[in-house]
Amino acid sequence: MGKRAKSLFSVDIIIPGMAGRPAHARISERVRAAIASGALPARSRLPSSRTLAHDLAVSRNTVDEALSELVAEGLVVRRRGAGSFVSDRPARPSRVVPASREVTNCDAPAPRVSRRAKALQAYPGHHSPMQAIPFTPSLPPSELFPVKIWNRLLCREAARSGTAYWEYGASNGLPELRHAIAAQAAAMRGTRASADQVIVTTSTQQAVELAAKVLADPGDCCWVESPGYQPVQHVLRAAGLEVVQVPIDRQGLRVEVARSLQCHARLAYVTPSHQYPMGYEMSLARRSELLTWAANEGAHVVEDDYDGDYRYEGRPITSLQDMDSNHVVYVASFNKILFPGLRIAYAIVPRGLVESFVDAKHVADGHTALLSQGVLASFIAEGHLAQHLRTTRTIYNERRLAFLEESRILEALLEFGPATAGMHITGVFRDPSIDDRAVAAECIRRGVAVDPLSKYGAVDCGGLVFGFVGASRDRTRDRVQIVLRSITEVTSRSRAQRHVSN
Amino acid sequence: MGKRAKSLFSVDIIIPGMAGRPAHARISERVRAAIASGALPARSRLPSSRTLAHDLAVSRNTVDEALSELVAEGLVVRRRGAGSFVSDRPARPSRVVPASREVTNCDAPAPRVSRRAKALQAYPGHHSPMQAIPFTPSLPPSELFPVKIWNRLLCREAARSGTAYWEYGASNGLPELRHAIAAQAAAMRGTRASADQVIVTTSTQQAVELAAKVLADPGDCCWVESPGYQPVQHVLRAAGLEVVQVPIDRQGLRVEVARSLQCHARLAYVTPSHQYPMGYEMSLARRSELLTWAANEGAHVVEDDYDGDYRYEGRPITSLQDMDSNHVVYVASFNKILFPGLRIAYAIVPRGLVESFVDAKHVADGHTALLSQGVLASFIAEGHLAQHLRTTRTIYNERRLAFLEESRILEALLEFGPATAGMHITGVFRDPSIDDRAVAAECIRRGVAVDPLSKYGAVDCGGLVFGFVGASRDRTRDRVQIVLRSITEVTSRSRAQRHVSN
Repeated sequence: MGKRAKSLFSVDIIIPGMAGRPAHARISERVRAAIASGALPARSRLPSSRTLAHDLAVSRNTVDEALSELVAEGLVVRRRGAGSFVSDRPARPSRVVPASREVTNCDAPAPRVSRRAKALQAYPGHHSPMQAIPFTPSLPPSELFPVKIWNRLLCREAARSGTAYWEYGASNGLPELRHAIAAQAAAMRGTRASADQVIVTTSTQQAVELAAKVLADPGDCCWVESPGYQPVQHVLRAAGLEVVQVPIDRQGLRVEVARSLQCHARLAYVTPSHQYPMGYEMSLARRSELLTWAANEGAHVVEDDYDGDYRYEGRPITSLQDMDSNHVVYVASFNKILFPGLRIAYAIVPRGLVESFVDAKHVADGHTALLSQGVLASFIAEGHLAQHLRTTRTIYNERRLAFLEESRILEALLEFGPATAGMHITGVFRDPSIDDRAVAAECIRRGVAVDPLSKYGAVDCGGLVFGFVGASRDRTRDRVQIVLRSITEVTSRSRAQRHVSN
Repeated sequence: MGKRAKSLFSVDIIIPGMAGRPAHARISERVRAAIASGALPARSRLPSSRTLAHDLAVSRNTVDEALSELVAEGLVVRRRGAGSFVSDRPARPSRVVPASREVTNCDAPAPRVSRRAKALQAYPGHHSPMQAIPFTPSLPPSELFPVKIWNRLLCREAARSGTAYWEYGASNGLPELRHAIAAQAAAMRGTRASADQVIVTTSTQQAVELAAKVLADPGDCCWVESPGYQPVQHVLRAAGLEVVQVPIDRQGLRVEVARSLQCHARLAYVTPSHQYPMGYEMSLARRSELLTWAANEGAHVVEDDYDGDYRYEGRPITSLQDMDSNHVVYVASFNKILFPGLRIAYAIVPRGLVESFVDAKHVADGHTALLSQGVLASFIAEGHLAQHLRTTRTIYNERRLAFLEESRILEALLEFGPATAGMHITGVFRDPSIDDRAVAAECIRRGVAVDPLSKYGAVDCGGLVFGFVGASRDRTRDRVQIVLRSITEVTSRSRAQRHVSN
């Protein structure tokens, strides 16, 4: 437990959190977030203040100040001679969990939910679906989807199937669809796998959860990218895994840092072809290093190729699955390239793991709904997917170029990352004191959805994640203006506040 | 650990396993099964042979004989002065895992899968879907489903939806469907819940997995019925829970036995209206006892009402959800009453847990596919579900009566349980020495699918589970004859073997 808590803080040193705030506040905030996320479970022991002071390169007084704050809040207890521990049942730390969470429970005492469910409470549960306002990242514009073709196939498949789509289906998926997927992924991403190695799932989340269950037991570690894709981290936690944040740089996940944490991870989750959210490609050296680690440790890498079909400049990198099909679980989704309501994604798994994945999928939900699988198989086989990808690639590229041009007015404030692929682009604030969540909130108030970069984990500076595929040039121009005004509003507001407090 | 292992054996005493086999073989077989299922994890300590001998009321020699067998197989190690332990990585026990499991891994060393995935290997993963041969239990006959009506609604909904079904949906489900479900369940089963408390899932399995994640952490205990529905037990294990088998009697789960195990369960999974597979109704006294336990412990009960829509005689019992909506998660599925390929089920959850369930569903797979939800909502709203239930109730009842009549020729061999509700009936062999798995295998060889009762957990006597809704009277007559011949064949074969070995 001591080791686990320590590694958590080590990560913190590498990517210091809230720049500009006093050291003790940064430390206590970090511990609060770790407790809220479940990374520091109830009753776990914190490192000694001597160790913390040494690791964080601060004085013991600073550490003691942070701990006293946490003790006062009831989050941490000190036991004479034994050290400091996370409380038995820590009160929900109010600064971390959004206050907007409604209390729906009016006629009964609050039921006791599990620690992992508490950890999920920090994550916005979606009663209401995501709305397609620009620049919502990862949302394909539904008006581009060939609904008529899809509906024609749907009615045709439903009519001609007899009762084939009404019975129980194979847990790994409809054979026609698995064949189509194997061929498509091989052609686009160079994967080396037969249709037998394809497992049809409802979503990327489900594919990752199956990998977590098949390859790791509760308490086992999984490396994830920081900053990185949060929903998957929640999937891993819900499956009982310990999520270990590993910093990235422009080459991708820093494998040597991950190894130095000595947490004996069974899994690593990465987005090598287009890091989410930073947009970097994982370098060949780093990919080899990661695969060597996996081969040596008998561990596995989950490669999420969430937008591998969209590339506008240069050649795509070789997929990890192509480099080592024995240690890679490749996952991708049709929900982002066709439409989110579809709920079909897939995993391509190592040959020796096929049976275990089929068992896990069977136990999880039997199989994915059959009719949609049949319609998708026809959609691919009859060339409509290829056509849709050609169309959207052209339009997304136009929108990308429009965004790059229109967003120049933001360049004094934001340093943009690469935009050679995918459906989003990330800009990092040049001024580390800008609060990206306040900017995102101000944007929403003005009708524009952007994601604050800090939502994706600890970062040196805040930033904004823009989905560029949903807006035409004219709308892009207007919306960029709104973002600019929002940033100006937030910075002048915080300058005024600083003035008052001085 | 010692306590856990001990409770496992205590259950074993209450429902002794393989009757007619020598005591040491029964003990070693039980341990093998417990290791294979994950109930006894690697490195866990077995009770001392003195304790085992006392608890099982056998001599220490008998226990030592069983342990020696397990040590010889590499499943158990003995450490001087410390006791007996499950091996670090027990070899796959060949007698428990079906030998038919194919080795698909030909070009790489076997990858290391998790303990929970190993536990699932004892469960038949379904590459190939279930086949609709009589008397397969739990399989609705697809020819009775009004495919034309469904397809008409499907094409209409797809055409009129605009793009509403293509975007992201709410994680708890389509509002129209949640309203329809709340009304339907209230009318049929007296549930007390608003549409807000309904969470649409893909399957009963997923609904139970959400409950497991929201209400329990890895390592927490869940009571299940023994004999009981195996797929759900695997769901619970995959979610990291410890599954505690609790014996049932004609009144349902023996709550006082469960309490005496002192495993501080967070959850209990039961099938009160029609126990699976025995067909009993849970008595009012037992239901009250279970709910009192839940209220006192702050625990929750998962009520699986898997065939609550089919009742042929008498009145349905009051649902647990109606008795205490604060401590019950009610789950039911459309996959069994409409068609399995649909993949829509639901949970009705306590008001105070709604947010946590929505979060968990959002993390698990975003939401259930939208178009099918819309079609189902219309199917219910326009009265087609009610009509389908009326039609199938009449036909299933005719088939039930035919089965009861035709199966009289089996009554000398089998004692049948109640058949006043549901889609299956269970018979227990009057002769405890009959091997039900051998009979089921012989039936399959002759083209009839029946489930061996022992598949559902430890039982005094073997038995057969018949699904009666899939066969007309003529087919029922033929098939019952085949079952009779299969039993005769197996018993005369085993008599011949005994003769040879004497």
